[in-house]
Amino acid sequence: FSSSTPIKATLFPGDGIGPEIAESVKQVFTAADVVIDWDEQFVGTEVDPRTNSFLTWDNLQSVLKNKVGLKGPMATPIGKGHRSLNLTLRKELNLYANVRPCYSLPGYKTRYDDVDLITIRENTEGEYSGLEHQVVKGVVESLKIITRKASMRVAEYAFLYAKTHGRKKVSAIHKANIMQKTDGLFLQCCDEVAAKYPEIYYEKVVIDNCCMMLVKNPALFDVLVMPNLYGDIISDLCAGLVGGLGLTPSMNIGEDGIALAEAVHGSAPDIAGMNLANPTALLLSGVMMLRHLKLNKQAEKIHSAIINTIAEGKYRTADLGGSSTTTDFTKAICDHL
Amino acid sequence: FSSSTPIKATLFPGDGIGPEIAESVKQVFTAADVVIDWDEQFVGTEVDPRTNSFLTWDNLQSVLKNKVGLKGPMATPIGKGHRSLNLTLRKELNLYANVRPCYSLPGYKTRYDDVDLITIRENTEGEYSGLEHQVVKGVVESLKIITRKASMRVAEYAFLYAKTHGRKKVSAIHKANIMQKTDGLFLQCCDEVAAKYPEIYYEKVVIDNCCMMLVKNPALFDVLVMPNLYGDIISDLCAGLVGGLGLTPSMNIGEDGIALAEAVHGSAPDIAGMNLANPTALLLSGVMMLRHLKLNKQAEKIHSAIINTIAEGKYRTADLGGSSTTTDFTKAICDHL
Ligand SMILES: CC(C)[C@H](C(=O)O)[C@@H](O)C(=O)O
Ligand SMILES: CC(C)[C@H](C(=O)O)[C@@H](O)C(=O)O
Repeated sequence: FSSSTPIKATLFPGDGIGPEIAESVKQVFTAADVVIDWDEQFVGTEVDPRTNSFLTWDNLQSVLKNKVGLKGPMATPIGKGHRSLNLTLRKELNLYANVRPCYSLPGYKTRYDDVDLITIRENTEGEYSGLEHQVVKGVVESLKIITRKASMRVAEYAFLYAKTHGRKKVSAIHKANIMQKTDGLFLQCCDEVAAKYPEIYYEKVVIDNCCMMLVKNPALFDVLVMPNLYGDIISDLCAGLVGGLGLTPSMNIGEDGIALAEAVHGSAPDIAGMNLANPTALLLSGVMMLRHLKLNKQAEKIHSAIINTIAEGKYRTADLGGSSTTTDFTKAICDHL
Repeated sequence: FSSSTPIKATLFPGDGIGPEIAESVKQVFTAADVVIDWDEQFVGTEVDPRTNSFLTWDNLQSVLKNKVGLKGPMATPIGKGHRSLNLTLRKELNLYANVRPCYSLPGYKTRYDDVDLITIRENTEGEYSGLEHQVVKGVVESLKIITRKASMRVAEYAFLYAKTHGRKKVSAIHKANIMQKTDGLFLQCCDEVAAKYPEIYYEKVVIDNCCMMLVKNPALFDVLVMPNLYGDIISDLCAGLVGGLGLTPSMNIGEDGIALAEAVHGSAPDIAGMNLANPTALLLSGVMMLRHLKLNKQAEKIHSAIINTIAEGKYRTADLGGSSTTTDFTKAICDHL
């Protein structure tokens, strides 16, 4: 690729503050001479019978065709029986691994310095099976499903990620002392893959202990791989260490090279349309998308501009204690480019 | 009760460092003139057919008879098919609520000041059902069971605890956006109980968001009540905020007024018998036991002696960066009494 050949990518601006922060991404990319032909997609207002969701058939086809995309926050329509749009995308597109880097942003102080963690979450099964059942009134059950197929592919992704990103260690997070069969199968898959990467240090950590150690000393960890719910929990915990979901990017990886970068914070309806939103998580997700496209030089340039703008501290949005608007903060980043 | 009438209480010294830290508790209680007639119980070395566990029939009867006890760490015997002794106790004795206070210890610095949290964990069901199943090779499932009965009693315990301890707020932690039926039932029970306590502020928080907010600002929370696995995870996270499981007590509450206080850290076989163990978690669990027995004056006296010894910093065990032995640290506490 070269930055002058437009690459086609799906863009879901999403709901609430989504359109504003998506606009910020477009402006920053343009200022960095990264030419993306954005295929903008909007979720429907009625259930599409072909997807049984507000996500339309065209929405899904766009990602399948472009193989790469960026997604803002989506609010799930209110009313019983609607599947979360975020989850529907993950399941329908078979986005099996969710990668969430959490690193300290220079100049933005939290209780933790030099955090540098990568959580890799199985994204399709586990506690998210959707299988629940009332046995008798007052007794309900949920099924957690773990398969060898999904565990192997996320474990393989995690070790390959560690290797290609110069990471030294992979920790598999589990509760196999209690869920011996499900988490046991997950660990067995991690063991098998780990054996093929003798150069990567591999350990197994029980989830409760992992959370305790993360808040005591996050430097003990490097890459963490885990089943769906643990990934949901631990990725938010790690985001909290560096300031929250407004600052941390994510990318979903699917089969056949599909990648959908995603800001995982909420749609913040209370400040939507007010030019107050912090676009950092979506911008950094955009950077992950560029790296996936091997546009590394452009990715680094944009990344530095974002990081430096935050570090300088002159232009910060309200969630970071500043008083800049979304457009001022965006302009400051563009000025760095 | 008066401190001169010996109260009978079960004591499980437990494994590894258990006997040393149990000895510390006995010495401190004696120095404080708290006379407990300890009914010492040792786990068997073979499976007792009446319990199907290394816990003997006598072990269980002792707690059922005395209605109160203190427990050190128990290592589950190695080998397939053995149930965790900790879990067996909880299930066999129907210890339905696990209370874990986490508060900053004056003078022991962590990244967080003034933490003061109470986690109340459902202790008998949920993800700990033990029901797992291989559907076909490579596809396994675990059952999470939530009942109205267990959810109501833990919710009732949490609100009553909040009220009787002058707490202002109860947060119910869940993932009902994904597990609508199981976590939904849990929340519904919390809602019902909350309605009876209009003076207590009540909120529902999704577990991932809860973990993020806990590491960002633990002061947002007060009493937290939740299903089993979330309680396991969040209580360890909270312990991490104040220094770890070596410093945090816990108590298990059963039907008919049964209470088993418990240090929830491991048995630390690597330092067992070396006079290096930190007895703080078991001592503070002993204090919880005394409070449960309404020996509040004695409880406060012992509590202050422990807290002040740690605060002074002259006698600290190695895990807290000191070089005191268990016996020196214990003696320092006794000297404070
Ligand atoms: C919105 C919710 C269903 C989702 C999840 O649980 O995965 C979110 O917490 C996330 O992490 O993306
Ligand atoms: C040892 C283990 C089975 C136990 C649990 O998961 O409950 C422990 O982590 C605890 O919190 O007491």
